Amino acid sequence: MLHYPKPLAKLVAELERLPGVGPKSAQRMAFYLLRQPKEEAAKLAEAILQVKETIRLCKECSNFTDQELCEICRDPKRDRSLLCVVAETRDLIAMEKTNEYNGLYHVLQGLISPMDNITPEMLRIRELFPRVANGVREVILAFNSTTEGQTTALYLASRLKPLGVKVTQIAHGLPAGGELDYADQATLISALQWRREI
Amino acid sequence: MLHYPKPLAKLVAELERLPGVGPKSAQRMAFYLLRQPKEEAAKLAEAILQVKETIRLCKECSNFTDQELCEICRDPKRDRSLLCVVAETRDLIAMEKTNEYNGLYHVLQGLISPMDNITPEMLRIRELFPRVANGVREVILAFNSTTEGQTTALYLASRLKPLGVKVTQIAHGLPAGGELDYADQATLISALQWRREI
Repeated sequence: MLHYPKPLAKLVAELERLPGVGPKSAQRMAFYLLRQPKEEAAKLAEAILQVKETIRLCKECSNFTDQELCEICRDPKRDRSLLCVVAETRDLIAMEKTNEYNGLYHVLQGLISPMDNITPEMLRIRELFPRVANGVREVILAFNSTTEGQTTALYLASRLKPLGVKVTQIAHGLPAGGELDYADQATLISALQWRREI
Repeated sequence: MLHYPKPLAKLVAELERLPGVGPKSAQRMAFYLLRQPKEEAAKLAEAILQVKETIRLCKECSNFTDQELCEICRDPKRDRSLLCVVAETRDLIAMEKTNEYNGLYHVLQGLISPMDNITPEMLRIRELFPRVANGVREVILAFNSTTEGQTTALYLASRLKPLGVKVTQIAHGLPAGGELDYADQATLISALQWRREI
């Protein structure tokens, strides 16, 4: 049985720790980097170090930024009376891609999960309340359609409603192009519960 | 539409260049690295730089190594009269995993491909002949079952046979567990052509 030379084994191990990367693809990536000219491979290494040097959380919304405030919080054309709460920056990006939302965001950096011992105190929830008190008319909760998403939504709704702000949640139902007879039971139950008059 | 802060955009772009990594998984990896403690993310960067510093091709067989000769060429228990020719180190690793082969290897670092303008001169074919002349009794060609694999096999066979060495090729046929009525035509044709008496 072949053993990789140590530095190669180490690179494969480090690559394997990336999300979605198994032993096979880590190996492919390592061989790719080995075949690249040294300067090209170094670019990736430098980009990793650079990002850790420069990227921080936006002081307002916890989105990633290389400045004090993120691009969205700095944008004067954004509607400051609308606040969309998401779990992760990737959810924020998904919302932005719709081009349908022009308010601000609040990134919790996770979801409440009793199973994983993630309590409200471990998320950026505390920072949410002063923002809501500051002229926000509607808080839109946009979480995954999972137990954690629902737990977090219910928790936030119970904490926010006493402040007199409108709290809404994005709909759960049949995905676009989804066929009814292929939808799972949970999706159909949500779709029924979220039904509205047309 | 949101723009990533520049260092983050650069990291995503560099990750996207890795094989099998699309925009979505590059984004996931970048966010993962952002969430990691700085020292953890730096480990990957260092592993990349380290590998480029230390890993080279084995002087004998062109396998990756951090020494002059690779682990296999150095192993005194290997049968030096058997030489298995493969295209890439990953093929060598696949062969090793079988635990069925105890000879040496020769890694061509590619396959002949007129379509991609890859000629025999661009591969480690020249280095093969002195090795074969040095007491090898059988050369086993182990290439992908593709046009390029077959082209390379035929080319090498035509060059090696005049040297009086036995040249064999690994079989092409029905994969293990493969069902006949699901096999594609090309596989069945190969399986038929490679048939032998039982």
